[in-house]
Amino acid sequence: MRVEVINTGTELLLGNVINTHVAYFGQQLFKLGLRIDRQICIPDGDAIREAMKETFGRCEILLVTGGLGPTTDDITREIVAEMLGRELHFDDSILEGMRERLQKRSIPVQERMKRQAMVPEGAKVLVNDHGTAPGLYFPSDSPDVPHIFLLPGPPRELKPMFENKLLPIVKTLRPANMPKLECRIYRAVGMGESIVEQRIGLQLTEIPGLEVGYCARPNEVDLRLIGPSALLDAHEPTVIAALGENLASREEETLEQVVVTKLIAAGKTLATAESCTGGLLANRITNVPGASAVFSEGYVTYANDAKMRLLGVPEGILKAHGAVSEETAKAMAEGARRSAGTQFALATTGIAGPAGGTPEKPVGTVFVGLVEEGKEPEAHKFYFPLDRETFKWVATQSALDLLRKRLNSLGK
Amino acid sequence: MRVEVINTGTELLLGNVINTHVAYFGQQLFKLGLRIDRQICIPDGDAIREAMKETFGRCEILLVTGGLGPTTDDITREIVAEMLGRELHFDDSILEGMRERLQKRSIPVQERMKRQAMVPEGAKVLVNDHGTAPGLYFPSDSPDVPHIFLLPGPPRELKPMFENKLLPIVKTLRPANMPKLECRIYRAVGMGESIVEQRIGLQLTEIPGLEVGYCARPNEVDLRLIGPSALLDAHEPTVIAALGENLASREEETLEQVVVTKLIAAGKTLATAESCTGGLLANRITNVPGASAVFSEGYVTYANDAKMRLLGVPEGILKAHGAVSEETAKAMAEGARRSAGTQFALATTGIAGPAGGTPEKPVGTVFVGLVEEGKEPEAHKFYFPLDRETFKWVATQSALDLLRKRLNSLGK
Repeated sequence: MRVEVINTGTELLLGNVINTHVAYFGQQLFKLGLRIDRQICIPDGDAIREAMKETFGRCEILLVTGGLGPTTDDITREIVAEMLGRELHFDDSILEGMRERLQKRSIPVQERMKRQAMVPEGAKVLVNDHGTAPGLYFPSDSPDVPHIFLLPGPPRELKPMFENKLLPIVKTLRPANMPKLECRIYRAVGMGESIVEQRIGLQLTEIPGLEVGYCARPNEVDLRLIGPSALLDAHEPTVIAALGENLASREEETLEQVVVTKLIAAGKTLATAESCTGGLLANRITNVPGASAVFSEGYVTYANDAKMRLLGVPEGILKAHGAVSEETAKAMAEGARRSAGTQFALATTGIAGPAGGTPEKPVGTVFVGLVEEGKEPEAHKFYFPLDRETFKWVATQSALDLLRKRLNSLGK
Repeated sequence: MRVEVINTGTELLLGNVINTHVAYFGQQLFKLGLRIDRQICIPDGDAIREAMKETFGRCEILLVTGGLGPTTDDITREIVAEMLGRELHFDDSILEGMRERLQKRSIPVQERMKRQAMVPEGAKVLVNDHGTAPGLYFPSDSPDVPHIFLLPGPPRELKPMFENKLLPIVKTLRPANMPKLECRIYRAVGMGESIVEQRIGLQLTEIPGLEVGYCARPNEVDLRLIGPSALLDAHEPTVIAALGENLASREEETLEQVVVTKLIAAGKTLATAESCTGGLLANRITNVPGASAVFSEGYVTYANDAKMRLLGVPEGILKAHGAVSEETAKAMAEGARRSAGTQFALATTGIAGPAGGTPEKPVGTVFVGLVEEGKEPEAHKFYFPLDRETFKWVATQSALDLLRKRLNSLGK
């Protein structure tokens, strides 16, 4: 069953906004055994005519996002109705729902919003519980025209509509005899794509019925296997053995999820002391629901004075070795652990750039400190000559991975 | 001059990875007066044949990303060469460059990497300074075939290649008489899309030669105007007046950039005290290059004990009003400001969820505290019933916006 997606939005092609819909749709549809065969993005306005026409006869399900809002550049509803030869009718209940929603926030219904209550003949309304623009579903009435879904652009309106209104319909459209495939992601940290392929990938490619893919990111690679569950089960032990200690997660879990889960399981707590990563490490940890069970506090000590005052880093260390040094990273970690009274602490200190580099410590240098209660602190040097935000990301990645490995070895 | 983009990558359609290339290309090309007319995403493998064929005769420039790597699913180079009827030749200098790059990291050249040194007849090599897969440029030799650029998928390899190798070529392909258009974004915080349109947008839509667009996000709207600079200049004062205090930025600056710039200009410093936003506020501030001039330290005080010990929040306040309260937000801000010795401090305390809500303080409740040296601290209550990460984002957005408005009123 072929699925295509059309995203409308001039802002997506001008680059003011990143298109996150495709990834979301892909994940949701795969759970039903469906995959997106093609995704197309076009500007707001008339381009949708040609793009939609091309998909007719090529796919069975067509998802269209954007252009349902109240402003003048929102014309998807009108164009699709015209293309399919459907008249628009005013739907009182939609306007009433809009009025109710807005009343709670003391906002009156604007005249232009009323266009959003127009429904094309034969289309089913997908109620929008998080905004004013309803979605629309046009059931297919000929093999040349796909089932068409029109969905609002803003993610927080689109996602609940997709899950609660669209997926139940798509489920009824699937053929009954679709093969059940599973997708497993093995996330390896600190290993290149070629090494992963050499160590295990080439061998897996030989196996009939198994689809092998890779996705490389700074400091991590996803090995992706798609196939029937029994086949995946049969080969999983080989994959796990081949990736060894580098295998950070088997469920597309983020490193912070892995670390928080391990800390909870071990009944241990963590504090953070950040210089160059400026709060990103604490932010990633606190993105995990339930992090408060293991994370009580974090320090963002950007200035040397803050490192001394809050973490008790000795002035002598800063003077002798500099703020970006193994010694400072260790002292920061130990200071945070002691102050917070936790079992573990992580620290980062480095040069994010673009300014501040020296020949000895160029932009991209970072020291990550790790300390465990009752043990000597340790520090590791890394070099990531990347843009500021990627540098911060990879530095926190290295810190979380150090802790992950340490937690793996607990009690061994 | 029509430009199209084809992104190859099964991971993009399965949703394991978000496609950030399109937004990046859009921004870069607009600087040359070019816009992406259509973007298409297809899975790795054979689908590229049909997708590329369709663009022939429809566009003059075609950018293709992905499938140039060393693994078995990387076959873009081979398929395009075959489609255009070009033989592949081995290029020693590419292999040599690869060997040099990898040597620095003590990695030997893998056998499979050598495919990346194959160059189709008539194609120009775009050297990859940040990875092993070179890009390729096929100059158009007929009006039915566009200029084709093949680019590597990983953003940190693609971006420098795009800016240093591809853009200089595209510049020479542009027609000399292209009209010069400018794109201006007016970012309004705390205002709905309909209100922005009613207050100023409808009026602008009447003006010939001016293209008006909108993009709504939680708590902010971008009003986008495209046209000749003189026309934009002529209408800018009306736009600024209409958006008033809600206009946060005119250069697509993030709120954190606006705030850091204003702090630097005013010679003031800032500290942060975060509970529910868990480091995101400090992280956003330290994403701005040069933030260290105004930001010396931040506190992530997730636990009550940390709020008392690090920020001096009185136990009585926590007992009487709870951690999520106006009083706690004020005490956190004042505690951070005093401890850090800054002129300003921001604090956040709330319930990010999914757990922890009560009937009086449901998930999504947040108090933002702001204090200025020598003045009484203030706190504002917001309610953002959103998913955990969006909640954290919008809460930091509100905090930064409070400070932005305060900085605007300095000395008034």
